[in-house]
Amino acid sequence: MGKVSADINVSLDGFIAGPGARPGNPQGDTGARVHDWMKDTVGWRDRMGFPGGETNTDSEVVDEWFRSYGAVVMGRDMFDTGEVPWGDNPPFRAPVFVVTNRPRETFPRQGGTSFTFVTDGIESALGQARAVAGDKDVDVAGGASVIQQFLKAGLLDELQLHFAPVFLADGIRLFERMPPDLRLEPIRVIDSPHVTHVRYRVVKG
Amino acid sequence: MGKVSADINVSLDGFIAGPGARPGNPQGDTGARVHDWMKDTVGWRDRMGFPGGETNTDSEVVDEWFRSYGAVVMGRDMFDTGEVPWGDNPPFRAPVFVVTNRPRETFPRQGGTSFTFVTDGIESALGQARAVAGDKDVDVAGGASVIQQFLKAGLLDELQLHFAPVFLADGIRLFERMPPDLRLEPIRVIDSPHVTHVRYRVVKG
Repeated sequence: MGKVSADINVSLDGFIAGPGARPGNPQGDTGARVHDWMKDTVGWRDRMGFPGGETNTDSEVVDEWFRSYGAVVMGRDMFDTGEVPWGDNPPFRAPVFVVTNRPRETFPRQGGTSFTFVTDGIESALGQARAVAGDKDVDVAGGASVIQQFLKAGLLDELQLHFAPVFLADGIRLFERMPPDLRLEPIRVIDSPHVTHVRYRVVKG
Repeated sequence: MGKVSADINVSLDGFIAGPGARPGNPQGDTGARVHDWMKDTVGWRDRMGFPGGETNTDSEVVDEWFRSYGAVVMGRDMFDTGEVPWGDNPPFRAPVFVVTNRPRETFPRQGGTSFTFVTDGIESALGQARAVAGDKDVDVAGGASVIQQFLKAGLLDELQLHFAPVFLADGIRLFERMPPDLRLEPIRVIDSPHVTHVRYRVVKG
């Protein structure tokens, strides 16, 4: 069985999206800059269907992330803001389980992505994701609320933060009221002039 | 002339002290954990007058920090909360310039530390610190407000964040309403199982 892991870009002031994030403005005002380090990597560009890009340390981190998982869990807000911009061939290329209170038929897309809407909570979504991920990881894609829920419930094995050297000033915070007894251990750091990738193991028990 | 640099310990949720920080409880409830990585290093223990300690990567980072500066600037809240616990022989071992609205006579202490109270702003404090630092750096020790003021005024050359893998949930945030056009570049990363040290250059102009 693979790991349950989350990867997320975060600003130095702790935001994953700028103010006003919503469908039509998924990253919020100023929020795009937390993703700047990815946008020129060949790994990201390939997933987005763009030509070219750079092969470098950051691109290897993106490739590793995309190769690691066999299924994805995400929150409804992330799905709602992403549905239109992701288009017919979303970058996930794996089954995605969307935690929501709003039932909807499973939504198959191209390239291996499908969206299944799970209305009975994060543990159910995780169970369904594990069942299809096989030996690969389950990626908890976000947003902040779902990552917080997984951490607080002890369901996350690893968390990789990509610290972007930028400030957003306001927006959606990655961490809100996290329990101070939650313990993480940094297990790998990869750095470049654009971003610092720190992988943490969640210490259990 | 040396650099103007700040070094500060910060939790993953962006706090430098827990809730209720004040004289008598300088780190606030739960805030001590952001300093856990330092407390066993020989570099820190020596400065605090404690015997023993470990010589490791983290201790080298502490030694480098303490060796780098010839003068210190800090805010009044930091001085007020530290004055009693630092005792007769504070860990700075250099002239400290305290930015405050409250005039007070210069306060000499043992071991090379003195506290000079500067009532005409951060630029004046920096000028006085530079004048005594010679070729060494000026360390902007904190708290959060003074570091923010230096960053916003373009007076900081480098910022080293020591990311402690802990959550405080509440307290004093390192960054509040930072201008999104402020640009940093990570220039060195040192990691251990206890903390991730990332040094940033502040990109000017």
